[in-house]
Amino acid sequence: MNETPKSLRLHIGIYGRRNVGKSSLLNALAGQQVSIVSDTPGTTTDPVEKTLELAPLGPVVFIDTAGIDDVGALGELRKERTLKALERTDVALLAVEPGQWGEYEDFFVGQLRERNIPFGVVFGKCDLAAPSAGQLCGLDKDGIRWMSVSAMTGKGMGQVREALAALAPEHWFAEPRLLGDLLPAGELAVLVVPIDLGAPKGRLILPQVQAIRDILDSDASCMVVKERELASALARLNKKTALVVCDSQIVLKAVADTPPDIPLTTFSILMARFKGDLAAFARGAAAIDQLQPGDAVLVSEACGHHPSADDIGRVKIPRWLRQYAGGDIRVDNLSGRDFPDDLSPYKLIIHCGACTFNRQSMLARLGRAHEQGIPMTNYGLAISHVQGVLRRVLEPFPAALTAFDAVSQA
Amino acid sequence: MNETPKSLRLHIGIYGRRNVGKSSLLNALAGQQVSIVSDTPGTTTDPVEKTLELAPLGPVVFIDTAGIDDVGALGELRKERTLKALERTDVALLAVEPGQWGEYEDFFVGQLRERNIPFGVVFGKCDLAAPSAGQLCGLDKDGIRWMSVSAMTGKGMGQVREALAALAPEHWFAEPRLLGDLLPAGELAVLVVPIDLGAPKGRLILPQVQAIRDILDSDASCMVVKERELASALARLNKKTALVVCDSQIVLKAVADTPPDIPLTTFSILMARFKGDLAAFARGAAAIDQLQPGDAVLVSEACGHHPSADDIGRVKIPRWLRQYAGGDIRVDNLSGRDFPDDLSPYKLIIHCGACTFNRQSMLARLGRAHEQGIPMTNYGLAISHVQGVLRRVLEPFPAALTAFDAVSQA
Repeated sequence: MNETPKSLRLHIGIYGRRNVGKSSLLNALAGQQVSIVSDTPGTTTDPVEKTLELAPLGPVVFIDTAGIDDVGALGELRKERTLKALERTDVALLAVEPGQWGEYEDFFVGQLRERNIPFGVVFGKCDLAAPSAGQLCGLDKDGIRWMSVSAMTGKGMGQVREALAALAPEHWFAEPRLLGDLLPAGELAVLVVPIDLGAPKGRLILPQVQAIRDILDSDASCMVVKERELASALARLNKKTALVVCDSQIVLKAVADTPPDIPLTTFSILMARFKGDLAAFARGAAAIDQLQPGDAVLVSEACGHHPSADDIGRVKIPRWLRQYAGGDIRVDNLSGRDFPDDLSPYKLIIHCGACTFNRQSMLARLGRAHEQGIPMTNYGLAISHVQGVLRRVLEPFPAALTAFDAVSQA
Repeated sequence: MNETPKSLRLHIGIYGRRNVGKSSLLNALAGQQVSIVSDTPGTTTDPVEKTLELAPLGPVVFIDTAGIDDVGALGELRKERTLKALERTDVALLAVEPGQWGEYEDFFVGQLRERNIPFGVVFGKCDLAAPSAGQLCGLDKDGIRWMSVSAMTGKGMGQVREALAALAPEHWFAEPRLLGDLLPAGELAVLVVPIDLGAPKGRLILPQVQAIRDILDSDASCMVVKERELASALARLNKKTALVVCDSQIVLKAVADTPPDIPLTTFSILMARFKGDLAAFARGAAAIDQLQPGDAVLVSEACGHHPSADDIGRVKIPRWLRQYAGGDIRVDNLSGRDFPDDLSPYKLIIHCGACTFNRQSMLARLGRAHEQGIPMTNYGLAISHVQGVLRRVLEPFPAALTAFDAVSQA
C-alpha cells in the first residue's frame, strides 16, 4: 500500500506468439530486480500484470499477454484481450524466435504503428540460435530497434532495459501534473474532501492522496477539510489561498462558500486534465444540453466496484440526465475493460475519473470516441454541469472554458 | 488501493486439524458476501489471508491456517506458522468434525486461553453428521461458544457471523484513535511530511493518510506541509493551531520552528499509542541511556522492504546508538514475521512503526518483551531521544512522559 499506484506506472506490454518466451523474458527482466511487488493473477483469458521497479525507468507494470497466434475458442478470446491490452500499453516488446518472423509479426508491427506505440523487437532464446544478420536486416531497414537476448543466461537484459528507457514516451519523464503546476512554490491550496459513510476505514481516495503529494512535490502546501469546514478554514487564513479543489459531489456547497475571487475547481476536472484531454471533456459536458428523450448514454467505469444504493454512475447520473433532458434517457453501465468498439448507439459517453487507469488507456478511449464523433465527458464535469456551476470550476483552465462555451452556445 | 488497509481490519484466524473443512468454512462465510477483495497467496508454509467485508463487523482479514496436526518436516514448519498466526489473531474459530474432539483441540483451546483470544468452536460438516448433545456438553460446561454448520449447504453461517461480532474485542468497536481524540471538532492540526527522494510516486505513507483521515473523521481539519514550509504555514494562520505532528526524521527542525506553546508530537509517537503501549515505548526509549559498548540491540521491522543506502533501521539507528553509547553496539536486523522467542541476548528492542501490522501483533511482541524484561521502543521514539527532544514531543501525553522520566532519572 506504500507502493506507487498501478495507474501511475509505465505500462510495458510483452507480445509475441505462443511459447516464444514472453514470460521467461519478463522473469529474466524482473529477476535482476529484487522487488517484484505483486502479481495480479490473470483469469484464463486476461493478461497477467506484474508491477516492479525497473532501473532506470522507475515504477513499471509488465503486461504478460497471451500468444497472438492463440487458437480455439478460448484462444480467440485471449487474442482479443491481448489486442485490448494494447490500449493501455505505453511501450511494447515483441518477442520473436530467430528465424520465425512471419505474418503474425507483420500484423503486430502494423497494430503497434497504427497506435503509435513505441516498441522494440526481442529475439529470445539466442542461447539456442543466435539470429543472423540476414534475419535482422529487414527490420533494420524499417528503423525498428531489435535486441538479441537469452532469458536463460540473462544475456542482453541490460540492453532491453536501456531500450525500454529510450523508447518510453516523453511524457513519462515530464508527466502532466495533477495540480502542482497551478500552485507556485510556497502557495497554499485548500482541498475539500467529503467523507462518505461507506468510505473505507483509514483511507483517502486515490485522487485526494495524489493531489496532496503533488502539492508537496511543488513545494506548496495544502489544507484538507470536509465541506462543512470550508468556510471556517478559509477564514483562518490571513492570506488568500491560491486554489480551492473540491469533490464534485459537494461542488454547490464549495461554490457557495468560496469567495468569487478565489480560483475553484474539482478533483474530476484535475483528473480529466491529468488522464486525458480536459477541453474534449468540457465539450462532452456541454453536449448534455443536446440530449433528447429517447437518447442513449454510455456510463463507463474503470473499476467494477460494488454498486451502492445511491451509486453515482447507476443512480444519480441517470436521474440527473433524465431530469435535464425532460424525458427518458437510456443509460448503459459498463465497467472495467469493457468498452464497446462501436459507440454509434450513444449520443454521449460519461466516464468515471479513471483513477485506476493509466493515461494511455483513457487516451485510447477518448480517441475511439473522437473518431466516431461521440462526445465524452467524466462524472464530475457532468455533475458540475447539470448543477449549473461548470463554468465556475473551469475558470482556472481558459482553453477548456472556451471549448465548453463553443459547444454550449452553438 | 481504495480499500481499508489490512492492518486496520479485524483478524479472524481459522484453526483446526487437516481436512476438517477450514477453507470450506471460510469460503462459505465469504461466499455469502460479494466482496472478496483479494487473496494473498501463501507460500507452502504461510497461512493464506483473505480480506473481505463481513457484516456486521465490517472490514476483516481471515487467516486460513494449516492443520495443527500437520506432519512431516514441512508439516512442522506449517504448524509453527499456524501458531505464529495466533499472535495477530483478534478472534479465532476452531473448526472440528463432530465426534472428533481430542488432544489437538484441547491443546489449541489451551493456547487460545493462554493468549486471551476470544474464540468459538465450529462443528463443520453437520450435513454429514450432526453433533449430539453429548458431544457438546463438555464444551458448554467450560463456557465455550459452539456452533454447528454446514459449509456445503450454508447452514449456520449467519450464526457464525453473529458469533464473530459478539466475540470481537471491545476495542474493535471503540478502537483507539490515531490522533482524532487530541483535536476537538473545528480545530486544526499541522502535519509535517518530508518527501524523500525515494518515496513512491503519487503516494503518501500510510500513517500520514491515516492521520488525515482520522482528523477529518473528528470534524477537525489539517494543513499538510513539508518541513521547509512549517514556519510559513504557522504564520499563515490567524488562530493558533491545536497540534503539530511531524515525521521523526525531521523532528529537530519541527521543534525549532514550532513555538513552545503549541503542542508538538511525531507520527511515531501516535503509532506507538495506536498500535501498542506508548508508556512502555517511552520507557524503552529511556533505556537507550543504559546501553554499554558490547551490548546487543534487536532492530525489528514489520515489512521486509528493500533497504536503501541510508536505511533507518540498518544504517542510521545503529550509527546513532554507537555514538550514544560511545562504543560498539551489536545490531541484529530482523524483518517481517521473524521475531525471536528468546529475546534474552538483547538489551533493547527497537521496532518500526508497524503500520502494516495490526494492533494485536504489536501487543503480542510487546508482551513477549515485557515477560522477558527487555525494554522495547520504536524507531521514531529512539530518534527523538538520541536527538534530545523526546520530552518535548511526549508532552501531549503526560502518562508516557512520566513513564519516560521514571526510567530516565533512575
